[in-house]
Amino acid sequence: MPRTLKFTLAYDGTAYVGWQRQSVGVSIQGLLEGALSRIDGAPVTVHGAGRTDAGVHALGQVASAVVTTALDAPTLRRALNATLPSDVRVVAAEDADDGFHARFSATGKAYEYWIFDGEVQPPFARAWSWQGPRRLDVQAMREAAGALVGMHDFSAFQSSGSDVTSAVRTLTHASVREEPALAGPTPDDAASDPARAGRFVVCRFEADGFLRHMVRAVVGTLVEVGEGRRPAASVAALLQSGERGRAGPTAPARGLVLVSVTYGPSAGIR
Amino acid sequence: MPRTLKFTLAYDGTAYVGWQRQSVGVSIQGLLEGALSRIDGAPVTVHGAGRTDAGVHALGQVASAVVTTALDAPTLRRALNATLPSDVRVVAAEDADDGFHARFSATGKAYEYWIFDGEVQPPFARAWSWQGPRRLDVQAMREAAGALVGMHDFSAFQSSGSDVTSAVRTLTHASVREEPALAGPTPDDAASDPARAGRFVVCRFEADGFLRHMVRAVVGTLVEVGEGRRPAASVAALLQSGERGRAGPTAPARGLVLVSVTYGPSAGIR
Repeated sequence: MPRTLKFTLAYDGTAYVGWQRQSVGVSIQGLLEGALSRIDGAPVTVHGAGRTDAGVHALGQVASAVVTTALDAPTLRRALNATLPSDVRVVAAEDADDGFHARFSATGKAYEYWIFDGEVQPPFARAWSWQGPRRLDVQAMREAAGALVGMHDFSAFQSSGSDVTSAVRTLTHASVREEPALAGPTPDDAASDPARAGRFVVCRFEADGFLRHMVRAVVGTLVEVGEGRRPAASVAALLQSGERGRAGPTAPARGLVLVSVTYGPSAGIR
Repeated sequence: MPRTLKFTLAYDGTAYVGWQRQSVGVSIQGLLEGALSRIDGAPVTVHGAGRTDAGVHALGQVASAVVTTALDAPTLRRALNATLPSDVRVVAAEDADDGFHARFSATGKAYEYWIFDGEVQPPFARAWSWQGPRRLDVQAMREAAGALVGMHDFSAFQSSGSDVTSAVRTLTHASVREEPALAGPTPDDAASDPARAGRFVVCRFEADGFLRHMVRAVVGTLVEVGEGRRPAASVAALLQSGERGRAGPTAPARGLVLVSVTYGPSAGIR
């Protein structure tokens, strides 16, 4: 009997060409389809909620697939994790109603962008944080981020070559916070000397959808604000202009994480 | 003018044969000696406080070297970080008195061992935590760890093939604590559901010195206690016996981190 499954995935995107299958290179979608097809004994197509780019990470990517295996969902999760590489993990597998589609049923997504702001980037953080700018003015970045909240045409933050028909999105949350420099094992002296240890500056965005490279273009712009090279108050006019050339550069992929995907009550998740 | 320098190093040991130079493979010592020799224009020998094994990490390893470069210490740190791979970082460089020796001047070291105790190991934690045992009894592990504190002959936790003359060490601290599962970017649903997210169980040890594989043998034993396969109260007798065969297996290298090295007031650090 065909059944629809919802998978929640976490991955370190460093080694991959992104979510989507490509002609060359290993994709997360390809890995998951390969693993499911071997279990199902027939080709399985997997749909992802967010098409994360090469090098972008996920902690709550959601994927859906129609399968025929009789394995219960937790057993399937364990079987998948036994065959997938350790940098791609199925965090949860759940039965969903027929018609559930990870992308089309999604009502919102949350992304975080992690910037390391300090002298020496901790070795364990190099995979998921960008060490670029220094001594960011977090308060100015917050002010600039706030100007983006609401329903807007986000053309100013969209990469050229996008094929979407409308650039209007509703950004429901935009915040900038600080996190201690060293997550996980922490050197004693760094813990007692925050100036030496540095910090993470984390930009978080929630919206009904995101345009191609939108978060990274927004972060590139916010960082210019944080460095004092662009006034926080200028971001509203930039947004209004719709001109990509006026926004900041696209921040590197390595700092970006798809944190979660949300679904409405009618999405058919059991 | 020859001068003595003290370096504090952080590294992800995954890709390396360990601290010490080997006939085959890349060592941290070899990397640092290579980088310093290029700057100095002559061969430089580096001494490390702890000879971390292959795959073992450090956040506060200390190394000393006599160099002739006239670069001030912070500039030297930046020059080294510009040439070293990103998984090996010089956190600090400081001038030290002549005769300072990272190993012989050290009065103590602190190690932590990170165990992931949950269903699905977070991809970003796979480099520095051991996903092995499950549902550990942390209270029992604490009790067992406490029995090791003090001055003892630690032969029961020493790997065969050690060439030290005495196995007596003074363990000044042994603790077992819990840490949230997801350090760094955290999936929203995992944060709200700790049972699903799992946790880290972190064993920390401070001593005047450690025997070869001592921390990993102690952790292998504590884990058996945490799994209920060995009574906590039995560890005192095991220590007394001095028989390595009675202790637990050596835990994998990947979970072990050299956190810090301490020096007395007379160690000659400026």
